[in-house]
Amino acid sequence: MSKRQISLRGKDILGLEMMTVPEIEVILETACQMKGIIDRDIKKVPTLRGKSIVNLFFEASTRTRTSFELAGKYLGADVVNITASASSVTKGESLRDTLYTVEAMGVDVIVMRHEAEGAAQYAANVASPVIINAGDGAHEHPTQGLLDMFTMKEVKGKLDGLKVAIVGDIFHSRVARSNIWGLLKMGAEVHLAGPKTLMPYYIQEVGVHVHNRVEEALEGADVVNVLRIQRERQHKGLFPSAREYARIFGINQARLDLAKPDALIMHPGPMNRGLEISPDVAYGDQSVIQEQVKNGLAIRMAALFLVLTGGKNIETTA
Amino acid sequence: MSKRQISLRGKDILGLEMMTVPEIEVILETACQMKGIIDRDIKKVPTLRGKSIVNLFFEASTRTRTSFELAGKYLGADVVNITASASSVTKGESLRDTLYTVEAMGVDVIVMRHEAEGAAQYAANVASPVIINAGDGAHEHPTQGLLDMFTMKEVKGKLDGLKVAIVGDIFHSRVARSNIWGLLKMGAEVHLAGPKTLMPYYIQEVGVHVHNRVEEALEGADVVNVLRIQRERQHKGLFPSAREYARIFGINQARLDLAKPDALIMHPGPMNRGLEISPDVAYGDQSVIQEQVKNGLAIRMAALFLVLTGGKNIETTA
Amino acid sequence: MSKRQISLRGKDILGLEMMTVPEIEVILETACQMKGIIDRDIKKVPTLRGKSIVNLFFEASTRTRTSFELAGKYLGADVVNITASASSVTKGESLRDTLYTVEAMGVDVIVMRHEAEGAAQYAANVASPVIINAGDGAHEHPTQGLLDMFTMKEVKGKLDGLKVAIVGDIFHSRVARSNIWGLLKMGAEVHLAGPKTLMPYYIQEVGVHVHNRVEEALEGADVVNVLRIQRERQHKGLFPSAREYARIFGINQARLDLAKPDALIMHPGPMNRGLEISPDVAYGDQSVIQEQVKNGLAIRMAALFLVLTGGKNIETTA
Repeated sequence: MSKRQISLRGKDILGLEMMTVPEIEVILETACQMKGIIDRDIKKVPTLRGKSIVNLFFEASTRTRTSFELAGKYLGADVVNITASASSVTKGESLRDTLYTVEAMGVDVIVMRHEAEGAAQYAANVASPVIINAGDGAHEHPTQGLLDMFTMKEVKGKLDGLKVAIVGDIFHSRVARSNIWGLLKMGAEVHLAGPKTLMPYYIQEVGVHVHNRVEEALEGADVVNVLRIQRERQHKGLFPSAREYARIFGINQARLDLAKPDALIMHPGPMNRGLEISPDVAYGDQSVIQEQVKNGLAIRMAALFLVLTGGKNIETTA
Repeated sequence: MSKRQISLRGKDILGLEMMTVPEIEVILETACQMKGIIDRDIKKVPTLRGKSIVNLFFEASTRTRTSFELAGKYLGADVVNITASASSVTKGESLRDTLYTVEAMGVDVIVMRHEAEGAAQYAANVASPVIINAGDGAHEHPTQGLLDMFTMKEVKGKLDGLKVAIVGDIFHSRVARSNIWGLLKMGAEVHLAGPKTLMPYYIQEVGVHVHNRVEEALEGADVVNVLRIQRERQHKGLFPSAREYARIFGINQARLDLAKPDALIMHPGPMNRGLEISPDVAYGDQSVIQEQVKNGLAIRMAALFLVLTGGKNIETTA
Repeated sequence: MSKRQISLRGKDILGLEMMTVPEIEVILETACQMKGIIDRDIKKVPTLRGKSIVNLFFEASTRTRTSFELAGKYLGADVVNITASASSVTKGESLRDTLYTVEAMGVDVIVMRHEAEGAAQYAANVASPVIINAGDGAHEHPTQGLLDMFTMKEVKGKLDGLKVAIVGDIFHSRVARSNIWGLLKMGAEVHLAGPKTLMPYYIQEVGVHVHNRVEEALEGADVVNVLRIQRERQHKGLFPSAREYARIFGINQARLDLAKPDALIMHPGPMNRGLEISPDVAYGDQSVIQEQVKNGLAIRMAALFLVLTGGKNIETTA
């Protein structure tokens, strides 16, 4: 299948598990062009003029919501934010009715974050606008997976054959899941490390390497992707104390030195500095954490552009 | 008075009680054109470019706020949201001062929702921008009344002579009030049903039919407009329990069968499914509930357009 | 130094203490042109098209946030709001990381309000976008100081030699600080009055006149700037009761009569009417309180325009 024939027009972006390699490639390549727009003095193209995007967020988020909002605006679209606390949800409305309502307003894309696994798929089933999953519980966060891969590929020149270590609470992490599915598809070698109680027992079956000791996962890694410890997701008893976690799994310079000398340090943010990552590592030379944010914007611009236009000329007036 | 002479330019939209039949007609007709814009691939006309709209919401609302926000944006206006929780109101500022502040910022239209009856009229008295009432306590919600009439007329071809049943807590419902005033003006026959304790004793004087049994109101109706049970407005003791309400007044298929076979089911949303309306009715063939949302957007576009321009060519560049 | 050579392009606006007289003058003059845009029927110029502004508010504010949002939109910029309650701050993210994140998204200006003195300076140190301080604790609120001076100059024709009385809780007021620095630079005579426990002991050193009795400060004043009593900042025991405050320091007509007959009454809002200011004074002929809001919008348009363009033609298409 040649890339010419790939079109994401009208397609939902629910997770990387369901996405094909050519689809992933076309998003990564388009994001590269989008990054050029972000760097301009005039960050505005009219290509999505007259398109409307609703950020439907049932969980609080600054970075992802802001990233999608700016992505839409830089491309000339109208963007409207709906957050759960201010929404009809507090009046007891069902998710289905909320989606029907947004659909009826002629909205083209719904960017949705929801605390329930499968919520994005449900939305895609019941509502006609394109759904972009901005995180559904512990399931997937596909644009995060894409931006992580974009960042790795940008610096390392490829994904195929890279050794990527993912460290943290794998069980509750949608970021981990989207990374795993995407990286395996693109030919990377994925090594997981984290507390045993938070490592899904079935995970080895998909082709990843599971380590109990973080040092094993880091050994010779090209990339170290440090997960956020999400205190809000922790179930009592399953999780070590913060102090214990930092001691056993926290990524500091000594541990990072086990990886390749030019290994990248990544983190989806927001960081708990001193917990899962030490400040010297977070802001050190190997860190691409801030670049991930910029790449996230580029990936979201690419995703919105591709699902809404299929990939016509980016600069074209609507 | 010919319609050519009707201009809503600069007029406040406070309630349907004060609106004339030609004014209602020009809004309904303009909304018809606006609906065409919503259906387009490029939902954007520059006709309100350089106009500014503030959504000033002292009560939470997703659907109405989003509807006005998208309406303004589709027409090219700037829209800014102010919600009570984040506003100076929490610092003890008076409504008057808040209105003066918004006025001083050169805003053209204030779309206001407030918990007090008469708040929109008060705003119109003290502030110079055009006021559109987006709900003032139990008083009126004129754009809801207009969208309900638009929906009825679109499907039934007329309002004159229609038998419309409105079911629920009439006493606390601004939706009911706006429906009653609008429908009576347009020649419809209005039948009300709901708990006796929640039926205003003076209401018969305006020319509606009041029924204690919902079955009587439904008998031969062309339209059944089911009100939301607003738990937050209920006064203890005046109201039956939810279970009792559902049993006596809830609209299910058996009750709906008392109306005409092609009767429309309407609801202003958000719905309490299983309470005032059963799911099979809410999503059934006779339901136009989702279409109401779309029509609401068209009505708000029409209202904003007419009060700001008086009705010039919709497509004209500003 | 001629004004031609003054350029604020790329400069942070952190406080009036650090600003030069020519810089203040160029902002006041540019605001004058901006006021013309606010008064137009079409409040829109494309001069900041493709520029992006983030309102990063760690404290609630309607008037300042809305003012900056409209200012950006009237000039054609994209504006995105981030408020603390909905932000990663609640997830424990550091201010530094939040700033890095916003910077990485290609944002041109961060308008920041924060509860800590020096937060704006910190932001300017760590982040590359232009920082405009929208209030940092009790330190400064420079655009408020500028709009106050603009208002005085607009009515009185000059700032040099004006006698300005500032009344209230000087200790906790960023508005007072920005007024003091700006007015002294521009040659005005500044008289302070307020509870002795809330008067910084060092303040006389900067060249202001301090009075224990409000009557002395008002005597012959050209301008009376009444500070908001910020109950949320009061420390127990340092502050008189509201009733006592109103009796001793509240500005009513009798007290105002001590000032010049054409003295202006100003207040940064939101007002506690009946506490620091009586209603007849707040809405009387000498009050320019509502005009301050409009001027605030003009000042913010000027500030955004100057830091982003350095002062090119306002009407130019981007």
